Formats: sequence, structure tokens, C-alpha cells
Amino acid sequence: MSIEILPDLLGVFFFAVSGSLLAGRKGFDLIGSLLLGSLVGLGGGVVRDLVLGQSPAAFSTPVYLVAPVLAALLVYFLYSSVERIGRLLTVFDAAGLALFCITGTAKALDSGMNPVASVLLGVTTAVGGGLLRDVVANEVPRLFSSHDIYAIPAFLGAALTVLCSLNGVLNLGTGIVIAVLVFSFRLLAWHFRWHAPLAVWRRSPEAGAWTGQSSV
Amino acid sequence: MSIEILPDLLGVFFFAVSGSLLAGRKGFDLIGSLLLGSLVGLGGGVVRDLVLGQSPAAFSTPVYLVAPVLAALLVYFLYSSVERIGRLLTVFDAAGLALFCITGTAKALDSGMNPVASVLLGVTTAVGGGLLRDVVANEVPRLFSSHDIYAIPAFLGAALTVLCSLNGVLNLGTGIVIAVLVFSFRLLAWHFRWHAPLAVWRRSPEAGAWTGQSSV
Amino acid sequence: MSIEILPDLLGVFFFAVSGSLLAGRKGFDLIGSLLLGSLVGLGGGVVRDLVLGQSPAAFSTPVYLVAPVLAALLVYFLYSSVERIGRLLTVFDAAGLALFCITGTAKALDSGMNPVASVLLGVTTAVGGGLLRDVVANEVPRLFSSHDIYAIPAFLGAALTVLCSLNGVLNLGTGIVIAVLVFSFRLLAWHFRWHAPLAVWRRSPEAGAWTGQSSV
Repeated sequence: MSIEILPDLLGVFFFAVSGSLLAGRKGFDLIGSLLLGSLVGLGGGVVRDLVLGQSPAAFSTPVYLVAPVLAALLVYFLYSSVERIGRLLTVFDAAGLALFCITGTAKALDSGMNPVASVLLGVTTAVGGGLLRDVVANEVPRLFSSHDIYAIPAFLGAALTVLCSLNGVLNLGTGIVIAVLVFSFRLLAWHFRWHAPLAVWRRSPEAGAWTGQSSV
Repeated sequence: MSIEILPDLLGVFFFAVSGSLLAGRKGFDLIGSLLLGSLVGLGGGVVRDLVLGQSPAAFSTPVYLVAPVLAALLVYFLYSSVERIGRLLTVFDAAGLALFCITGTAKALDSGMNPVASVLLGVTTAVGGGLLRDVVANEVPRLFSSHDIYAIPAFLGAALTVLCSLNGVLNLGTGIVIAVLVFSFRLLAWHFRWHAPLAVWRRSPEAGAWTGQSSV
Repeated sequence: MSIEILPDLLGVFFFAVSGSLLAGRKGFDLIGSLLLGSLVGLGGGVVRDLVLGQSPAAFSTPVYLVAPVLAALLVYFLYSSVERIGRLLTVFDAAGLALFCITGTAKALDSGMNPVASVLLGVTTAVGGGLLRDVVANEVPRLFSSHDIYAIPAFLGAALTVLCSLNGVLNLGTGIVIAVLVFSFRLLAWHFRWHAPLAVWRRSPEAGAWTGQSSV
């Protein structure tokens, strides 16, 4: 699979929806919703293209701007139940993550990067937009929080993409399989609150008492 | 009008003043004031130049550094009434916005970008510095807040710049007219609290009761 | 001294430790610790390389990724006393600052930048990672806070690096001297709370009463 524009556009759309949903919850206006959606949807890809030394696709290919507009309108008309916002946001965020870790990695490989750097850039692309979203909206980024695993699914997807590409079997079929895997992994991790060990290993039992250091 | 350096420098100065004013309000020291002013004044242009694949003017043209120094000194000596800080900050921010949406768009056109991408990059240049300022100072970015219209004036200015350029009438005179238009639009929107509809369209009357969904 | 990779790698490691320490204090998990460490350690250098128009070393040279992994593991196993975290973080941050202001400046000079821009880019490299760390973790960046001097030591180190380079005496020995100077200056400033004047010069005695405007 070379870089088809469609999965990348879909990823932009999913992330843009997550941005517009957060804008809705924060009480931003419609323009703020469009801008936050654009930042989330296009931010990761712009960083990816700058690292690759290419003109960012978001600027050179105007069709990319359609996705955030659709996302902002969709959220404007369909956002009705405040209760489900967190859940919806997580689902759309996971969908964007699943697509971007593949397209980001594939674009890096296409540009001649070595496999290790391609995995790293794929993960950066996938988590970058969401990181910008949370930072700009003054929330602790879910990328870093210890509630559930976020970066590991993206890393897995990027690694599988490199493996498929090196073996010449990266095509629409395997791409869909990888995306479904990453999407399911991320949602299962969120639902069952799978999480990694804390950043610190507390030895003293008292310390362990007030902050349960548990693992998957 | 090709890219003259003067309006760009003026825009850097205006944004740098807004950054130094915020530094004063936050209780930062003189160096923090200089650094925050530099980030606000130069940040949008650095992103613009990176997207254009050029060496950022802020680094290659040392005269750009004079503007944040002047801004920090000006704020140091003239900042006296805490009450008017919010107003002053908004005025200088609007002046920077008015200049950057023109210079950013003109530079993108000069670099061979298509008109749609040039408008987008002009708006990004204009709103980028202020976004960095608010994020770094831990405030909800005024770009997204629903109190008054912020991005629309910049968008209008960028679109007018493209129109003038396509018709070969982008010169000092039309540039000043556009800048005055954008500046006035932004300040009127701020003064009269013009704002866009909220990001969500609430159907239920109860929901509408606690969060008035009003429009311009 | 041309750009040796070792001091740059050491700087990445020190900054990554500061990121992982903050992750530990914030209750992030081990993956969040690795990611925040990577962002802090590699972020400043990526910005530097993008400004220089080069492929970021963090992506093209996979050995850079070893430093954040080591840092996250070190913090995981050795973090035990919460009381000393702030102090440790400051020390590792100062060590990263001391190395990056030299390597960033030297790389800019090697790339043909003029001396003034090289100093500016060296300071940007040195303070960039820490700024990202504090912004992402939702803290007021220590770069801007008025508690103690942060950017001046980096500026001094960058200026000395340019001076040594222009006189052809930038080698391992002078590099170590500059690094020790910057490191000591920063830690002394922190310990004795040396700070610059506030961003504003208050004339009225009442205003000065509630916010003591003191200088070094």
C-alpha cells in the first residue's frame, strides 16, 4: 500500500470530531470548534511532514480542509447528550489513532526513512494531534495519564505496518486488519482500564498503600 | 506589495507587547517578559516559514530580535495601571493580528502557494503567536473561547489579501485599508461581544436554558 | 569541537530524566514517563534541526532513543523519596541546559548560521525541551517564572560558545569549562533565588507593597 489519501483523510476526520466534541464540552463557539478540530486533525500530520522535510499536506492539498468542516458541522447538529461525550470522544480518538499510526509509518517508509525511525514517526503522528488537543484545552494529556494504555496500541500498529511493508504485504487488506487491531486494543484498554505500571516503583509498603502500583 | 519587512516587524512588536503585558500580569520577571514576548511575536512567523520550507526569518534576520526587546522595555517602564491591562493586551493583540494575516498570506503567495493554502497559512501565522502565548501562560486560548470573534477577522484579512494580490492591487494603500478593517472588526467584536453560535446546537429547551445558545 | 554526538546524547539523557521525574510526581505510568522523557529530551533538538532545515537527529539517528529509555528505567527503579524530587529535577534540568546551550549553538555555527542567530538557536534548543515539559504537564513554565534566573545561564553559555568558536578554541576542554560554568550559575541562581527585576516597574508605593519588586 502506498500512501492513499483516503485513510489519511478519514483519520483527519476522526481526530477532528474528537476536537470538536471537546470544543462542545468546553463551551467554545462554532469557529473554535472548527479550529480545534483542524488543529487536532491536521497537527500530527504537519509535524510528520515537517520532520520528513516535505511541504505539509494540510496546506498543499486543500481537500484536507473539508474533513474538519464536516466534523464541526456534524458535532454541531448531532451533539445532544452531554453524558456520552467522553465515550464518543474516546471512540473517535481511537479511530484516528488506528489510521494515523499506519499512514504516518507508511509515509515515513515511502520517504526513505529507516524502519526504526518510521515506527517512531508513525507513533508521533498518531499521538501528536491528541496531545495538542489536550494541551490547548488545558487538560492533562491522555497520552501521559495512567488511567489506560494509549501509546502502546499506536506503537503496535506502527510496528506491524513496518513488518508488513518489509515483507511486501502492506495492502488495503492488511491495513484494515492492523487498523481494526489497534482500534480494538485501544478501546479494550480504555474499557477495562488496562494500564502500565506507574512511572515509579515504590518499595516501601506504606507508599504502595496509598498509590496502588498495579499492572496489566 | 511584496513582503516588506516593516509591517512584519511591526506585527512582531505588537504581539511581543501583548506577551510582555501578560508576563507583567502573571508576575514573571523581566527576562520572562522578553522571552514570552519573543515567543508570541516570533512563534507564528517561525511556523509559517517552516511550513514554507524556508529558514525562519526570526533566526536569519537578527533585526527581528529588536522588536521583543523594545516591547519588554516599553512594558517595563509604562505598565502602571493593572486595571487596563486586559484592554491594552487586546488592542495590541488585534494590531498584530491585523498585520500578520496580511504579511503571512503575502509571503505564502510569494512562495508560490495556491490561494486557498495561502489564506490558511496567513490565518495560522496570525493566530499562532497568540495561541502559543495563551497555552504557555496556562490560559484558555482566546482563539477558541466563545466570548468574541477572533479568527474571522484574520480570515477576512487573509482572503482580502489574496483577492487584492490576484488582481494586482496589493500595495501599501490597500494593505493599510485591509489592516484597518481587520483591526476595527476585531475590536468591535471584542467591545460588543459579537460571537459565533456555540459549537453545539442544543435541541432540548432545558439544555438551552442553562447555556444560552445565541448568535451574532 | 565539531558536534560530537556524546554531549548531545548526555543532554538528552539529563532532560529525559527531568521529564520522567515529573511524570513520577504527576502519577503518570511507565509509558507516560518514557514519552514525556522523550518529548523533553528530544523536543528542543527537533525544533533546532527543523529551523536548520535538517532532518531531525532524533529520527535519523536511532541511538538517540536509548537515552529516554534509560532515563525512564532509572527513574522507575531509583525514585523512592518524594521529598527530593523537586531538587533532583532541577539538577538534571540544569545539566541538560548546560550541555544543550553548547551543542545547539555549535550545531548552528556548523550549519553556517551567523553568530547572533546561533546564540539564539542555542538558547532555544536549551530551553525548548523544558518549556515543552512544563506546558504539557500543565505547570507554569520555570522558564518564565520569576523565582530564579533560568535563561541567562543558557544565554551566557551560548555566547561563550560562539566566542570560543570564533577564536578557534572550542574544544573538549573549553566545552567542559563552559558547561560547568552554566551548570553552576544555574544551580547557584536556584539555590540563592537570584532573580531578575519583575516584568513591570511599579511606581506607586502601594503597588510595590504587595508585590516586592526586587532585583539581583
